[in-house]
Amino acid sequence: MTISVPATSANLGPGFDTLGLSLSLRNKVVIQPSRFFSVSIKGEGANNPRLKGNNLFINIFNDHYRHLTGKRGVFRFKFYNQIPLSRGLGSSSAVIVSAIASAYSAAGVYIGKRKLLNLALYYEHHPDNITPAVMGGFNVAVVENRKVYSLKKRIPNYLKAVVVIPNKPISTTYSRMALLKSYKKEDAIFNLSRSSLLTACFFNESWDMLRISAQDRFHQVARMKNLPELAEVQKLALENNALMSTLSGSGSSFFNMTYRDDAPMLLEKFRKRFPSFRSEIFDFDNDGVLFS
Amino acid sequence: MTISVPATSANLGPGFDTLGLSLSLRNKVVIQPSRFFSVSIKGEGANNPRLKGNNLFINIFNDHYRHLTGKRGVFRFKFYNQIPLSRGLGSSSAVIVSAIASAYSAAGVYIGKRKLLNLALYYEHHPDNITPAVMGGFNVAVVENRKVYSLKKRIPNYLKAVVVIPNKPISTTYSRMALLKSYKKEDAIFNLSRSSLLTACFFNESWDMLRISAQDRFHQVARMKNLPELAEVQKLALENNALMSTLSGSGSSFFNMTYRDDAPMLLEKFRKRFPSFRSEIFDFDNDGVLFS
Repeated sequence: MTISVPATSANLGPGFDTLGLSLSLRNKVVIQPSRFFSVSIKGEGANNPRLKGNNLFINIFNDHYRHLTGKRGVFRFKFYNQIPLSRGLGSSSAVIVSAIASAYSAAGVYIGKRKLLNLALYYEHHPDNITPAVMGGFNVAVVENRKVYSLKKRIPNYLKAVVVIPNKPISTTYSRMALLKSYKKEDAIFNLSRSSLLTACFFNESWDMLRISAQDRFHQVARMKNLPELAEVQKLALENNALMSTLSGSGSSFFNMTYRDDAPMLLEKFRKRFPSFRSEIFDFDNDGVLFS
Repeated sequence: MTISVPATSANLGPGFDTLGLSLSLRNKVVIQPSRFFSVSIKGEGANNPRLKGNNLFINIFNDHYRHLTGKRGVFRFKFYNQIPLSRGLGSSSAVIVSAIASAYSAAGVYIGKRKLLNLALYYEHHPDNITPAVMGGFNVAVVENRKVYSLKKRIPNYLKAVVVIPNKPISTTYSRMALLKSYKKEDAIFNLSRSSLLTACFFNESWDMLRISAQDRFHQVARMKNLPELAEVQKLALENNALMSTLSGSGSSFFNMTYRDDAPMLLEKFRKRFPSFRSEIFDFDNDGVLFS
């Protein structure tokens, strides 16, 4: 059996812990019953030996598989990973969601997307990556009593993501320092109003107001100081027809959205100006987790 | 010429200074050239002598009329007011919007809704009442550089507002005291995520998630303490099929939304339990300001 989960861009603009969307690059895992436990990794993370063996995926998989079947299964896991690690593109959420989905699949037990999402919340307490990872598309999510309440909007295929992936992560220590414990009233309303309008833009397909809506005062500026090129990425994007341009998750990747026809030119500008960064055009994903 | 402007319910749920919608009760003004200046008021405010003569409407009207024509016109103003005063139903916004619209109309100068909205912002610095007053329907609004950026969603006619209008206002002093200067991070995200989901509920017509989305931590609880019956209003509403139940503006009215078939029963319960309050079923308005 095969499970695949898309990359996600969360903390979208002002939508801290709330808004996220999914991208067409995917982590896939093929699970086969086997006489010996084995793990192979191709793609992202293949060179990181810590990921083999006792990793997050295997722990979550074993927990759920044992819970469902009462026994410990022996499987061969083949991972094909496209989602860069520690770059704010939802690789942890993809691991969590695929591990739970794989356990249910291997146990032969059906799991609905809503239940899968609520189980994933146990491992990741904010919903903005796991929700689009499960559902696909653009998602708004609220957590109440350990449950996720979310609504999804499909993203039309005439829109593209032009993503800039720096060659290093933003340091987690620095990233945590950037988080305040309280917000000034005007900043809270700044983000609240823009997060609401950004939501309306997606649901109403009103792309011309994305630029105003996508601004953030909660964390982005502080985090971007750690990697000053990101301010330049944003400037270049907004000068070249990007509909919105914002940090992806807590960084270091930068998410830029354009109309299809504007994507190749922006990509070229990014590649020329930031040759050591990886820049790519991605489609949006509207499927979320896939079982096959 | 006749201008009419609907009542509005703003600060909707968690959508502080951001979300608002418009209701089918209206303030109407008929303007006729005349040899003598005169004002007559029927309906709400008719017994309040301070409103006659040099009131907010006349000041704003004169400013704009003079600006447009270079002279001071002499008119007869007949007001027919349905919007209760100082009850959080947007009577000030209605005055501002109708005064500007009347001046343009009397001067024979066309004014588009977007321009009218931006002029109204000069008199009322938060956009959540003036936007639905101008546009009608459910609105999300952001202010940037003294301009309003907003998106509108029409509200289907199978939904009704069951509004409870107490026999007194919430004291403004008390009401201002209820406003904090900063919010804890978790409260800011509580409101931000719910305001975004509430927006998605309206645009996606997903009414079943309104109840989760409509909760607020910014001002409502503090304001409701001043009029303890309001907590009972909310409890009664949520026990009787209200889709959402929240303070209207900064009070004292309470806004409850139901499916059409559930409205009469809720109305009856309100009238029985709170005989000294005015309780009414209103349609939603999707037109905003009307010129004729």
